[in-house]
Amino acid sequence: MIKISEVKKHNGETVEIAGFVKQVRDLKKMQFLVVRDVTESVQISVEKNENRKAVNDVISSLTLESSVRIKGRVNVDDFVKLNGVEIIPDEIEIANLANNTLPIDLTDFNESNRDLRMDWRFLDLRSREHQLIFRVQTTAEMAMREFWINHDFTEIHSPKLMGNPSESGAELFELNYFGGKAYLAQSPQFYKQMAIAAGFERVFEIGPVFRANKSFTSRHDTEFTSVDCEFAWINSYEDVMKFEEEWVAHVIKRVKEKHGDEIKAVLGREITVPKTPFPRITMKQAKEIVNSLGYVVPPETKGDLDPTAERMLGEWAKEKHGSDFVFVTLFPTSIRPFYHMYNPEDPSTTLSFDLLWNGLEVTTGAQREHRYPVIVRQGIEKGLIPANAMTPDGEVVTENLPQGLKDYLSCFNYGCPPHGGYGFGLTRMLMNLLGYKNVREVTFIYRGVDRLRP
Amino acid sequence: MIKISEVKKHNGETVEIAGFVKQVRDLKKMQFLVVRDVTESVQISVEKNENRKAVNDVISSLTLESSVRIKGRVNVDDFVKLNGVEIIPDEIEIANLANNTLPIDLTDFNESNRDLRMDWRFLDLRSREHQLIFRVQTTAEMAMREFWINHDFTEIHSPKLMGNPSESGAELFELNYFGGKAYLAQSPQFYKQMAIAAGFERVFEIGPVFRANKSFTSRHDTEFTSVDCEFAWINSYEDVMKFEEEWVAHVIKRVKEKHGDEIKAVLGREITVPKTPFPRITMKQAKEIVNSLGYVVPPETKGDLDPTAERMLGEWAKEKHGSDFVFVTLFPTSIRPFYHMYNPEDPSTTLSFDLLWNGLEVTTGAQREHRYPVIVRQGIEKGLIPANAMTPDGEVVTENLPQGLKDYLSCFNYGCPPHGGYGFGLTRMLMNLLGYKNVREVTFIYRGVDRLRP
Repeated sequence: MIKISEVKKHNGETVEIAGFVKQVRDLKKMQFLVVRDVTESVQISVEKNENRKAVNDVISSLTLESSVRIKGRVNVDDFVKLNGVEIIPDEIEIANLANNTLPIDLTDFNESNRDLRMDWRFLDLRSREHQLIFRVQTTAEMAMREFWINHDFTEIHSPKLMGNPSESGAELFELNYFGGKAYLAQSPQFYKQMAIAAGFERVFEIGPVFRANKSFTSRHDTEFTSVDCEFAWINSYEDVMKFEEEWVAHVIKRVKEKHGDEIKAVLGREITVPKTPFPRITMKQAKEIVNSLGYVVPPETKGDLDPTAERMLGEWAKEKHGSDFVFVTLFPTSIRPFYHMYNPEDPSTTLSFDLLWNGLEVTTGAQREHRYPVIVRQGIEKGLIPANAMTPDGEVVTENLPQGLKDYLSCFNYGCPPHGGYGFGLTRMLMNLLGYKNVREVTFIYRGVDRLRP
Repeated sequence: MIKISEVKKHNGETVEIAGFVKQVRDLKKMQFLVVRDVTESVQISVEKNENRKAVNDVISSLTLESSVRIKGRVNVDDFVKLNGVEIIPDEIEIANLANNTLPIDLTDFNESNRDLRMDWRFLDLRSREHQLIFRVQTTAEMAMREFWINHDFTEIHSPKLMGNPSESGAELFELNYFGGKAYLAQSPQFYKQMAIAAGFERVFEIGPVFRANKSFTSRHDTEFTSVDCEFAWINSYEDVMKFEEEWVAHVIKRVKEKHGDEIKAVLGREITVPKTPFPRITMKQAKEIVNSLGYVVPPETKGDLDPTAERMLGEWAKEKHGSDFVFVTLFPTSIRPFYHMYNPEDPSTTLSFDLLWNGLEVTTGAQREHRYPVIVRQGIEKGLIPANAMTPDGEVVTENLPQGLKDYLSCFNYGCPPHGGYGFGLTRMLMNLLGYKNVREVTFIYRGVDRLRP
């Protein structure tokens, strides 16, 4: 059996293909099929006559989206509109006859029919456009892992079941665990740091995380694939950014090599491998840039950027530096978690960054605080740890640490080395690369507030 | 900064290393440290005198398992017991001073202290033996993906949150989902088949699954990493076994190439790349073999093999075929799920198999039933689908299908091609390769009935 994309190379030969029936035209003297596999579509053409009766009868009985195996002779002919090639079939075997009423139209993808398409996701995914998303995802993930492993990273699978709420009680799914309670991990953050404390030095994980977020926006979901890494013995958060930009460039390079032509043909998009280093601006500079462009970030963001400001910074980076990417650094302490390292030169900021890609945030990263008394003090300042967990002399009172953070914080009490890392949005990468605007389109089986099926 | 395994190549040069303090000997005239990184350990030796006071003072203050950066001169000398090399330090920087009371002894791993070691897993994992497990796992997973991708497989991330119980209500974790109910996936089975129905042709997934199993045995856990693949257009379950044995051999080959010497040095085990094809025996033959060896499988197994029989078959395969592996095929219908294809020559058996590795089951695989009326009838026979979901003429009455199976079964009503696949036990592979007897030792952070932390 050969792939349909290979058919044209076998002019005059007998080949076998298999796929789904995309079109049937049963005319008076001729029958035409279009059959699609994971690579391409091809026309099947056959005369109606007594010699061909077996094949003719099968074609007459076919319904759209049935799966078939076909054996026949390849005929390369420029008159065939579809790719200049057809197969004259000797045998057609119906592997599975589809119900003759399709619940969705496989040639029509838009926002208004999205919910119905999601109900019938396995049919919705049969189109070449949608298949391409997941082949690009496969290549991207392998390129990520390849880069990590070439840099001595170890893969981990951190637990998704947790005995205590992690970063915050909000957005947390709770479950019944043999009569007690467990929680679903919202991120592998604590566990990837635990791996650093365990001497793994460099780790990565690609796996699911869960957020009980009630939003219905185009960017929100309750379960998604998180891409994470963490590494020890850094000197600065700059080391983390340096690593990440090379990693991103490598991933996009691999996607372009393997799928660049097809992405252009199917989606009309050009994949551009970014130049490194990416521009870096501090949060202070970022605010000045948007101000100079006539925009003031509203106070509700509490010092963060809003989507409008991110978009403007994306345009600014493109115009000023010819870059689709820009790092924004030194985020305010007030909007970063207690485990980010504070800037020793200005403790109101953290040694952290976001990465914007075409004005869309795809990463949060930082150097982490690895010093036991310092991280405990930062937790106390954030109100996550009771004040009596530290003596007036700055000694940690381990027994007064909150139960939910004790295992995590203990890591820093036994020699955990300096480290940093980042999390990266897989779906946001696919949206950026392939031009999709909704996370539902680039997720295999989407999960949201009102979507738990199929 | 260089890895400690590289130190010996730099005799006479000044190098920088970083790692954890494994031993401190602070003698009258000399000080010795042993420092360990992810690759190796090395001795640090320094005289006590006025010129070395800064370094001497740092070493005197060091506690075990603190993390340090060391700059110094390499001295290759056969008199140094540890690897014939030492570093004479110029600078030692304490990155993180460990609490001077370690809760576990990092040189003593056994069953009796396992529970305490699991409490302090990040310290337990610092030993070279335990680190090796996860570097082997990393290589094995990459080899799996490499083989799949070279055979045109697409990676999927199937949802772990499900709106309906999947295969069975037992062993299922239930959670509160915005006031309604959701369940955690026990396997990606339905979704990998959905991907086949979606035209992906060949898919794989490595990801977490969840089982609310109350067992406390050495093999049971409530969350583990499942390794799964599924592919279309097979002619027989034999195609699935053929693929799997080549895949397994490739994975072991890569592990041997990358870690064979270290596994031998650290664990005293020889990795052997298996020859293919693996021997195949039917369940009927398997029973005859164990009978001929004087054992009768107890009736409680209801036609399945028990661990004793599996062990005997492992020994038989080794003796008779020189193979660590043996496929057992044609499992009874009564102990296989309704979606396995039944044997047309004997419907009391299924076109399915298990793979035994050293007498331990590591795989269940099968050709799946892809014909809509047939799978529905099999579901009715198993009591999972009400009888009124099929007319006396054998037509499926879609509206009478149970809600929980409707989305899954619909896949077979719209042209899903023939397909098969297997699931593979990652932890069992590590136990087999590295000689561990308990799943707790080869899981990064173990989850069981009474273990939800750290």
